[in-house]
Amino acid sequence: MSRPLSPGGLYAEIQAFYARQTRLLDRGRTDEWAATFTEDGVFEEVVKGERLEGREAIAASARKRADATAAEGVQRRHWFGMLEVDHEADGRLGATYYALVMSTPTGGGLAVYLSAEAHDVLVPHHDGWLVSHRSIRHDAAGPLESEAPWSSA
Amino acid sequence: MSRPLSPGGLYAEIQAFYARQTRLLDRGRTDEWAATFTEDGVFEEVVKGERLEGREAIAASARKRADATAAEGVQRRHWFGMLEVDHEADGRLGATYYALVMSTPTGGGLAVYLSAEAHDVLVPHHDGWLVSHRSIRHDAAGPLESEAPWSSA
Amino acid sequence: MSRPLSPGGLYAEIQAFYARQTRLLDRGRTDEWAATFTEDGVFEEVVKGERLEGREAIAASARKRADATAAEGVQRRHWFGMLEVDHEADGRLGATYYALVMSTPTGGGLAVYLSAEAHDVLVPHHDGWLVSHRSIRHDAAGPLESEAPWSSA
Repeated sequence: MSRPLSPGGLYAEIQAFYARQTRLLDRGRTDEWAATFTEDGVFEEVVKGERLEGREAIAASARKRADATAAEGVQRRHWFGMLEVDHEADGRLGATYYALVMSTPTGGGLAVYLSAEAHDVLVPHHDGWLVSHRSIRHDAAGPLESEAPWSSA
Repeated sequence: MSRPLSPGGLYAEIQAFYARQTRLLDRGRTDEWAATFTEDGVFEEVVKGERLEGREAIAASARKRADATAAEGVQRRHWFGMLEVDHEADGRLGATYYALVMSTPTGGGLAVYLSAEAHDVLVPHHDGWLVSHRSIRHDAAGPLESEAPWSSA
Repeated sequence: MSRPLSPGGLYAEIQAFYARQTRLLDRGRTDEWAATFTEDGVFEEVVKGERLEGREAIAASARKRADATAAEGVQRRHWFGMLEVDHEADGRLGATYYALVMSTPTGGGLAVYLSAEAHDVLVPHHDGWLVSHRSIRHDAAGPLESEAPWSSA
């Protein structure tokens, strides 16, 4: 959808962006998923202590995970919810949201196995957005101690 | 809510439509739920291999399931999320979303037991929408092999 | 975000309100969370039979729960979804939604343990909203018998 101007429109636009982006990942279309990050995009996960720098590294990591998941005959799903969107400098957006990760083996039962909180920096791109920085904090890391828990550094 | 014109408004409108529609089903108001489908609406579930044609058949199937659930003293909940809405021909909309199904027996614990992906075709109706075609693919069917997994045929 | 005028904007605004409000609770910032209720706000939970009257009582109850959760080293998450927003008299809004509650112990696994339906009455406050009445019905209370299940009285 083209970029609406109203806050309501913007909020819905970001919801739709995440739905499209995440569906690419859950379908194993990892290159298209990685293309929703900037060339110099950063993806970091607290707990795992993983920090990926650049679209290529993000794509390679996702590909590896997707291949393993496919080999197991498992369908993964990522749900994002409880979204907050804030305007930042230079037309960027800050998006904070909860994430759930679940998987279902072919012919098997659902396991909802991971809860996390995430923060993205989104930058305008054509009539949409790209993620320039994503920080994910797994709930297993324990209750937040600070208001800016997004750096794993 | 009346039909807004902005993409943001439309996206929110469809979210609200699904909230209202699904609440009808979860409350066992299956005739009202079925009335949110067109008279010739199609409801198909991959895996179960079920294909229902027409509002009456959709209502009868939902009634049967709701009665069984009520007899068990179970409260079911359907959550839809990760929504994408696309404009199709003739003013129709294509809506793709994830679905979670869960249940709680009276006095018992929650079980989140099913994850699926769904695609609806929505047609304008008065100041709202009706579902003319719904395809649901349970994750247990295994990872998607195609970009158009919506037909069980 | 400031209050938009379009239905779509309003719907998104309420989604964002709940995201912000709930994040405060999940971070243990219970006084700020309680400040999103009116001074004479009512918070009632069917099943638990708990009825809290007034912001102070709501804050005290939340503080007690948050301290216990923190002492256990557990991260709680509240997800709201399937939102319906209706206009009521005097500029108030009625919001009906589903709620999921989950927790993850530090270094442990996720447990999604509670499903509920909730109804709020929201009153305008500056350029946002406050909750004047919240009723939560746990699914373990059993299937709804009425269309107005919100009073525990």
